[in-house]
Amino acid sequence: MSYFDTASAAPLHPVARQALLAALDEGWADPGRLYREGRQARLLLDAARETAAEAVGCRPDELVFTPSGTRALHAGVAGAAAGRRRAGRRVVVSAVEHSAVLHAAEALGGEVATVGVDRTGRVDAADFASALTADTALAALQSANHEVGTLQPVAEVAEACRAAGVPLLVDAAQSLAWGPVEGAWSLLAASAHKWGGPPGVGLLVVRKGTRYAAQEPEDERESGRAPGFPNLPAVVAAAASLRAVHAEAAAEAARLSALVDRIRARVPEVVPDVEVVGHERLRLPHLVTFSCLYVDGEALLTGLDRVGFAVSSGSSCTSSTLTPSHVLKAMGVLSEGNVRVSLPRGTQEAEVERFLQVLPPVVAEVRAQLGAPAGGTAVAAGGGAGAPDEGLEGLVVDSLGKRCPIPVIELAKVIGEVPVGGLVTVLSDDEAARLDIPAWCGMRGQEYVGERAAPVGRAYVVRRQA
Amino acid sequence: MSYFDTASAAPLHPVARQALLAALDEGWADPGRLYREGRQARLLLDAARETAAEAVGCRPDELVFTPSGTRALHAGVAGAAAGRRRAGRRVVVSAVEHSAVLHAAEALGGEVATVGVDRTGRVDAADFASALTADTALAALQSANHEVGTLQPVAEVAEACRAAGVPLLVDAAQSLAWGPVEGAWSLLAASAHKWGGPPGVGLLVVRKGTRYAAQEPEDERESGRAPGFPNLPAVVAAAASLRAVHAEAAAEAARLSALVDRIRARVPEVVPDVEVVGHERLRLPHLVTFSCLYVDGEALLTGLDRVGFAVSSGSSCTSSTLTPSHVLKAMGVLSEGNVRVSLPRGTQEAEVERFLQVLPPVVAEVRAQLGAPAGGTAVAAGGGAGAPDEGLEGLVVDSLGKRCPIPVIELAKVIGEVPVGGLVTVLSDDEAARLDIPAWCGMRGQEYVGERAAPVGRAYVVRRQA
Repeated sequence: MSYFDTASAAPLHPVARQALLAALDEGWADPGRLYREGRQARLLLDAARETAAEAVGCRPDELVFTPSGTRALHAGVAGAAAGRRRAGRRVVVSAVEHSAVLHAAEALGGEVATVGVDRTGRVDAADFASALTADTALAALQSANHEVGTLQPVAEVAEACRAAGVPLLVDAAQSLAWGPVEGAWSLLAASAHKWGGPPGVGLLVVRKGTRYAAQEPEDERESGRAPGFPNLPAVVAAAASLRAVHAEAAAEAARLSALVDRIRARVPEVVPDVEVVGHERLRLPHLVTFSCLYVDGEALLTGLDRVGFAVSSGSSCTSSTLTPSHVLKAMGVLSEGNVRVSLPRGTQEAEVERFLQVLPPVVAEVRAQLGAPAGGTAVAAGGGAGAPDEGLEGLVVDSLGKRCPIPVIELAKVIGEVPVGGLVTVLSDDEAARLDIPAWCGMRGQEYVGERAAPVGRAYVVRRQA
Repeated sequence: MSYFDTASAAPLHPVARQALLAALDEGWADPGRLYREGRQARLLLDAARETAAEAVGCRPDELVFTPSGTRALHAGVAGAAAGRRRAGRRVVVSAVEHSAVLHAAEALGGEVATVGVDRTGRVDAADFASALTADTALAALQSANHEVGTLQPVAEVAEACRAAGVPLLVDAAQSLAWGPVEGAWSLLAASAHKWGGPPGVGLLVVRKGTRYAAQEPEDERESGRAPGFPNLPAVVAAAASLRAVHAEAAAEAARLSALVDRIRARVPEVVPDVEVVGHERLRLPHLVTFSCLYVDGEALLTGLDRVGFAVSSGSSCTSSTLTPSHVLKAMGVLSEGNVRVSLPRGTQEAEVERFLQVLPPVVAEVRAQLGAPAGGTAVAAGGGAGAPDEGLEGLVVDSLGKRCPIPVIELAKVIGEVPVGGLVTVLSDDEAARLDIPAWCGMRGQEYVGERAAPVGRAYVVRRQA
C-alpha cells in the first residue's frame, strides 16, 4: 500500500512513537501535583511547551496544548472574538478555510464575511484588507489550503489586519510541518497528527497583546484556554516530532516538491480530460489535487484503493452531505472525479511512478462503467435527452435525480446532436452540476450560458461552439 | 515509591498500554476515509465504542468519546441544559460535585441551586428531590465523591429526577472503574485515565430520549457531540482497559476495601488529633481521606513524598487559590493537614503497612516545625495572643496574615490561658480558618460560639469548656 493522504492524517513519525512510549512511563501523572511523579510530569509538559514554541516561533507562555487542531480553532475563534466583542461581532474569513474555522465563525452568531479566491484557491491580500471594517472582531486565514495546497499571503494579510487593528487567526494545520508561519499574526492553530505527531494534540498560540476571553468553563490548566487533564504522553510526542520534522523539512520539501511537479505535469498527459487545480508554484511541497471529467469520485477512490493507493477526494459523492467541497466551489473548478494526493515524508519516486501507471486504467474503468464519452469525443445521446420542453431552451437533458458525474456525462453525450450555435439545457438537482457543468464547458471549449430556477432542481444552459 | 493518588490519575493498565501500541500501528488513519487504512480505523473505533458501551450499560449509539472527562462534563452540562432551555435555565447540583461540573453549570449563566451534604459528604435523596423545581433544566450528581470517596444515592435521585421530568447527569469519573452506574440516569460522563486508560479520552453518554443540543460548532464526528479528529489509539486503549478493570473489579474492590478499612481504623490510633472523613461504609473501595490538626498540608505531602508516598490533599495550602477544598467545606470537616489516599489496583498490604509506619513521624515532624501543641495538650501562649481588644470578646489571638494551620495552632496554644467558660477570639483572614476553627472545637471538646465580621478578616469566637 502507498498511503498518499497525509493531509488527512500523517503516519506516526518514529520520533513521536519513541517519545510517546517514554512518556507513557514517565508522564502519566497529574502535572499539577506536588509529589515526584507530578513534578516529573510538569517538567515534561514544560519542556514540550518550550520545544513547540520554539518550532512555532513564539514564547512558551503564548502556547497551549488543546485536544485537537479542531478544538484549537474552535477555542481560538471563540476566545479572540469574545475578547474583541466591543469592536463588533463581524468575522472575516477566506472562502476556502477549513470547515472547523467556518463552523466556529458561524457559531458566533454574527456576520461572517467571506473573501473569495482565484481559480488557484488563493486570496488576494488587497481584497482581504478591504473586507476589514471597523466592526470586525476577528479575521481568519489559513497558511495553506488543505485541499489544493495553495499558500495564502499570510504575512501581507497580517500587516493589513494589524493596520486595521483586527487580530488575525492563522490556521497552520497544513503548513506547520514545513516551518513556522511568517508574519505578524495574532493567533495560530495547528494539529499534531498532520505533522506526524499522535492524534489528540492541537496547538493554540495567542500572541501577547492579543485580547482573548476564553469561552470554556473555568479551568486552571493551560492558562484556562484548554480545559481538561492534559494528554501528556501525546503532547510530549507531538513536540518531539515537530522538532524532528522541522529538522528534515528543507530537504524533504525539495524532494517531495519535485515528485509533486511530476504528478502535476504527467497526470494530464496520461489521463484525458483532467484539470489539475491549485497553484503551480505557491503551494505546499507535498500536495497536489486534480479532477477527472466523467468520473465518480467514490468509484475512483475505491479503484485506487484496490490497486494500493490511499487518497482522498473533494467530490460530492465522497461527502456525507453529497455536496462538493466548498474549496473547489470557491475556486470554480471541476469537482467530479476529484483526487487529492498528499505525500507522506519518505515517499519514494517509484511509488509515484507506480501511481502514474495505475491511474489511467483506473480512471478508464470508472468511465467505462458509467458509459462516459471516450477520448474526449462526444458520443451518441443516452436516454435522458429529448425534444425541447416548454419554456426550456434547445435540447433538454433531464438528469433529475441523477448524481455527479451523470449530468455531465449526459450533457457530453448529447452535445454532438446540437447544431453549432444551438442550445442544450441540463435539468439537474445535483449540487455538483452547478460547479461541474461550467467547468466542463471551460474544458471542452463550449459556452456556458448560465443557470436558472426550474420547477425541480435547476436548468443549466450551454451553447455548442464546435 | 508507592503511588497512592489513583483518584488523580491511575497508572496505565497493562492492557491499555498493549492496546495503545497496537492501535498506533493499525488505527492512526482517519476513520472517515474510504480506503483500507480508514476502514480499519473505523472498525477499531466501532469496536471500542461497543466495548465501552457494554461496560457502561448503554447502547453504542448513546456513547461518544471526548478528549477528557472534563470535556465530557462540559459538553454534557451545556448540551443537556440547552436541550431543555424551554423548561428554564436552573441547574441543580450537589455541593460536592467536581469543579468541572460546577464551572460548567456556572457558565450557563442561570441559577445554580446547590444541594448540601451531611458530614460524610452524602446528599440526601429527598433533599435533592425537593430542589427539582418546574424550571429546572438539568440536575447533576456524581456517583462517588472524588475527594472523600462517599457514594451518592444516584438511583434514588435518578428516580426523583425522572418523576420531575428533569434529566440527571451523572459524573461517574471516580466509580466507573468499579462497574456501571445503576439507575435511570439520563447522561453520564467519565474519564479513561481514572480507570487506567490513557489520558486524552473521556466518555459522554446521552440516553435515547434525552433532549440534547450540542453547543460546540458543527462537526460531523462523534454524532456532533465531540468535535475534532478522534484520538483513536487512546480510545482503543481506553475501551480495552475499561473491560479489563471491570473483569478484575469485584476481587480487587474487596481486597483494596480491606486495606482502606485498615487505614481508616489505624490512622487515628497512630496519629493524635486526626479526623477521618467520608462515609465508613458507603464509599469507594480504594479511597480514604483524613485531616490532621496543626499540620500544613503542603509540608505533609512533601514529607510523605520524601519517604516514598504520593498522595494528594484538599488543604488550602495545596490549592492555587489558597482556599480549602469545596468538598471539605460542604461537609463541614477539618481541612488542615488533609490527606487523600487512593490506592491503585495491585496495592500490596506491605505498602499500606509501611504508610502507617511513616505517617506518624512525618506528621510529628511537621507539627514540631510549626510549634504545634503536642499530644493534644494546650501549651503556653505564643506571641499572637494579647489582652482583650476593644469590641472583641475575651482573649484575642491576632492571626491576620497567617495561613492554615497557624491560626488553629495559635488558638490551641492560648486556650489553656482562658478560664473555663471564658472566651477567646481568633482574628484571621485565612479562608481555611472558617472551616478549621469550628472543626478544631468539635475535635477538642470546646464550644464554637460563631464568627463575625472584623475590620480586617473575620473574628472567630470560642468558649473554653474544659
